[in-house]
Amino acid sequence: MARIGIIGSAGRMGQAIARVLEASDHVLAGGIDQGDDPAALAAQCDVLIDFSSPRALDANLAAARRAGIPIVIGTTGLEAEHHAAIDDAAKAIPVLQTGNTSLGVTLLAHLVREAAARLGDDWDIEIVEMHHRMKVDAPSGTALLLGEAAAQGRGIVLADNKESGRDGITGARAIGSIGFAALRGGTVAGDHSVILAGEEERITLSHHAENRTIFARGAVRAATWLLGKPVGRYTMPEVLGL
Amino acid sequence: MARIGIIGSAGRMGQAIARVLEASDHVLAGGIDQGDDPAALAAQCDVLIDFSSPRALDANLAAARRAGIPIVIGTTGLEAEHHAAIDDAAKAIPVLQTGNTSLGVTLLAHLVREAAARLGDDWDIEIVEMHHRMKVDAPSGTALLLGEAAAQGRGIVLADNKESGRDGITGARAIGSIGFAALRGGTVAGDHSVILAGEEERITLSHHAENRTIFARGAVRAATWLLGKPVGRYTMPEVLGL
Amino acid sequence: MARIGIIGSAGRMGQAIARVLEASDHVLAGGIDQGDDPAALAAQCDVLIDFSSPRALDANLAAARRAGIPIVIGTTGLEAEHHAAIDDAAKAIPVLQTGNTSLGVTLLAHLVREAAARLGDDWDIEIVEMHHRMKVDAPSGTALLLGEAAAQGRGIVLADNKESGRDGITGARAIGSIGFAALRGGTVAGDHSVILAGEEERITLSHHAENRTIFARGAVRAATWLLGKPVGRYTMPEVLGL
Amino acid sequence: MARIGIIGSAGRMGQAIARVLEASDHVLAGGIDQGDDPAALAAQCDVLIDFSSPRALDANLAAARRAGIPIVIGTTGLEAEHHAAIDDAAKAIPVLQTGNTSLGVTLLAHLVREAAARLGDDWDIEIVEMHHRMKVDAPSGTALLLGEAAAQGRGIVLADNKESGRDGITGARAIGSIGFAALRGGTVAGDHSVILAGEEERITLSHHAENRTIFARGAVRAATWLLGKPVGRYTMPEVLGL
Repeated sequence: MARIGIIGSAGRMGQAIARVLEASDHVLAGGIDQGDDPAALAAQCDVLIDFSSPRALDANLAAARRAGIPIVIGTTGLEAEHHAAIDDAAKAIPVLQTGNTSLGVTLLAHLVREAAARLGDDWDIEIVEMHHRMKVDAPSGTALLLGEAAAQGRGIVLADNKESGRDGITGARAIGSIGFAALRGGTVAGDHSVILAGEEERITLSHHAENRTIFARGAVRAATWLLGKPVGRYTMPEVLGL
Repeated sequence: MARIGIIGSAGRMGQAIARVLEASDHVLAGGIDQGDDPAALAAQCDVLIDFSSPRALDANLAAARRAGIPIVIGTTGLEAEHHAAIDDAAKAIPVLQTGNTSLGVTLLAHLVREAAARLGDDWDIEIVEMHHRMKVDAPSGTALLLGEAAAQGRGIVLADNKESGRDGITGARAIGSIGFAALRGGTVAGDHSVILAGEEERITLSHHAENRTIFARGAVRAATWLLGKPVGRYTMPEVLGL
Repeated sequence: MARIGIIGSAGRMGQAIARVLEASDHVLAGGIDQGDDPAALAAQCDVLIDFSSPRALDANLAAARRAGIPIVIGTTGLEAEHHAAIDDAAKAIPVLQTGNTSLGVTLLAHLVREAAARLGDDWDIEIVEMHHRMKVDAPSGTALLLGEAAAQGRGIVLADNKESGRDGITGARAIGSIGFAALRGGTVAGDHSVILAGEEERITLSHHAENRTIFARGAVRAATWLLGKPVGRYTMPEVLGL
Repeated sequence: MARIGIIGSAGRMGQAIARVLEASDHVLAGGIDQGDDPAALAAQCDVLIDFSSPRALDANLAAARRAGIPIVIGTTGLEAEHHAAIDDAAKAIPVLQTGNTSLGVTLLAHLVREAAARLGDDWDIEIVEMHHRMKVDAPSGTALLLGEAAAQGRGIVLADNKESGRDGITGARAIGSIGFAALRGGTVAGDHSVILAGEEERITLSHHAENRTIFARGAVRAATWLLGKPVGRYTMPEVLGL
């Protein structure tokens, strides 16, 4: 049973994490938002989860260090300077930073890397995702994360091989390219499929999210996994032992 | 048992039709190609199937008229003048012209029209297709045919509501638009899915072709269906009784 | 803007309907449960939605009749006597009784009936569904409803052609049979696919429910659709104009 | 460029392998069937592929040993005595024996093992397959192979946790069980999906075979991979470097 503190508790992810904790063996030790003091929160927690903003990062890391407790950073929009601050904090406490806290997506990325590494580039890779009608960008960040995994598996650079938004007279498919297609509609929380299409056979590796709670659940699992770990910077794949 | 003649017998579709006839109760009465005389063929057939070229159309229709037998036209690339010639021939003999002879796709288009007509435009429509890596254009003709069916169901014009090749910062989905996404890879003969995504539920209507034989099979079925029909111009949906 | 009353307001469906009404243009006029008086509720409503129990049906119908308002009956476990009571009430007020209020499933059943009617029995029909791990029976009621639609389309009796739980040495598939397969796992709200598999092609018609709210939404739509209708007994397909 | 000999050349797999070789860089050095002499064939080959019968196994292994060349054994129905004979031959030559030569299925099984090992048994595992209407048994051998991979990943025994042909009042799903469902219809060459269903998310790992050629292709790849390998007994996963 861990005492968990949430930074950014009024946000969509903060609220989802609170709901997950309610139904768990762990305790919501407290939650703060913009203007509140992270040090006061840290003093009464075993671990912190931060889904706030890059601007708050320094104070949050400092609070965790002072209390000597681990911290999970799920905040998006981090720049190089923020990553440097995280690296620095990771010399004193366990820190896990990630752009996607879903365990399912983390595992899928691992399987995609593995599949792409084992199959030659006579297997074409296509990534198709579907999200709700309000999403404003394409492809999704998760689709790109899966594309990166595929590119790593093949030992190529995604940016040089990415083909997105196929339309019109395209010519035959370029060997080794990684294709992206984005579907939008309804209230879909997030579906992703990576298709590896070879000669007369296909492998499809998919993830389906029923709702956004899974990201909260993964954040909590990451937080409890960090307890008792040596100082250092960790990633989601390590939580799954990948 | 019908005696069937193939115009364009050396082409990919002509060969596939010959293979289908071999395994059927019907008889391949003969096959001709560029330079051969369609009248001689027509004289020994109950019905003709034409997968040749627009240039040969006039002679083929004339041959069928003279013999007083029906003809299926699967030739692509027809212009207004060809359609006028078909309309004219249809005053004397039964003619069925179509850009897609698959019974499954024909039925799917019917179901898509029906679904789009019944559901309001708070159900977003997305069409995703996958074809082999050598296909040079996107979306596929069949995807567009399905999009037309959806647009007809909704009483809108496809060209005004088509959204294809989504990529980058797109903004939220436009109400009433019909989206297209094209996947390419491997040796896929042709997969099509029409997704209707509403509030917290989704309907998906799909067609999967194992290979191109189905188009030959549909052409033969259309040909035998035409036997004994009154003069006139027919379509694939009528073959299925739609 | 309709004033809607819920009978069975504390139940899972009753609560879901209340949440749907909150986000709608309509008004929750009141809700009652076991022991409460439906006549008092009916007096202040334009229409009633009943998700209570068969035992309460007589009093609920009587309340609706006295107030001269329509009623939607979503209660399950109805016997012949209950259906007779509904038929009787339908001589005085509009009544819609259904075992599944989802608009998507209602439309899917219609499409399945249509597809089965158009394709011969050389197209094999298989129905596969997935539900959460706590579901205790198989196949699901909705899978059977879809199977009934397929059987009606073919003009056969489902009970005579049903094949469920295929396992072991089964022999080749019986011509004309309708197969059922049930998957269980996780928290899946309800996925259903009807596969029509022909010679080298397949049509798949699927419904995916993100959660159970869709059933509440459909009940509300049915209720508002009933307003102003002539007396009589109605079904969900009529709400969609099928 | 390898000279490849086929034992069982008139069978369905033998013929498919011959077609694959025609379109490859390799040479069909010869093919034999029941009654022919494998030693004469082996003398003119670099490697043998055996899709004949268990009864012929001893002579085939002896021929390969005498010629000092590797052999791929795809014959099914092997008993303990045959495996002992293979082990014995593997002391003198490279031998690869397998019940499934598809590279895609081999990789999928690897991914399933990996996924099952990483996710706890709060992720329910379901395996669903579809095959043509003539298939007489269920679940398919490949589905069982995938189930074995899942069981290995979890460290459990498949036979103790297998649940196949779910039908009727089943009660809630048993924790840790591995479910199987079999669909039959049309001419489907073979589709397999392994679903891992967790709390509000799902991972699906699928393989789709367009036709049976892929098994021939995998056998040829296994044969050429064996060339120059040290004596010993090998498996398909090793061909993919798994």
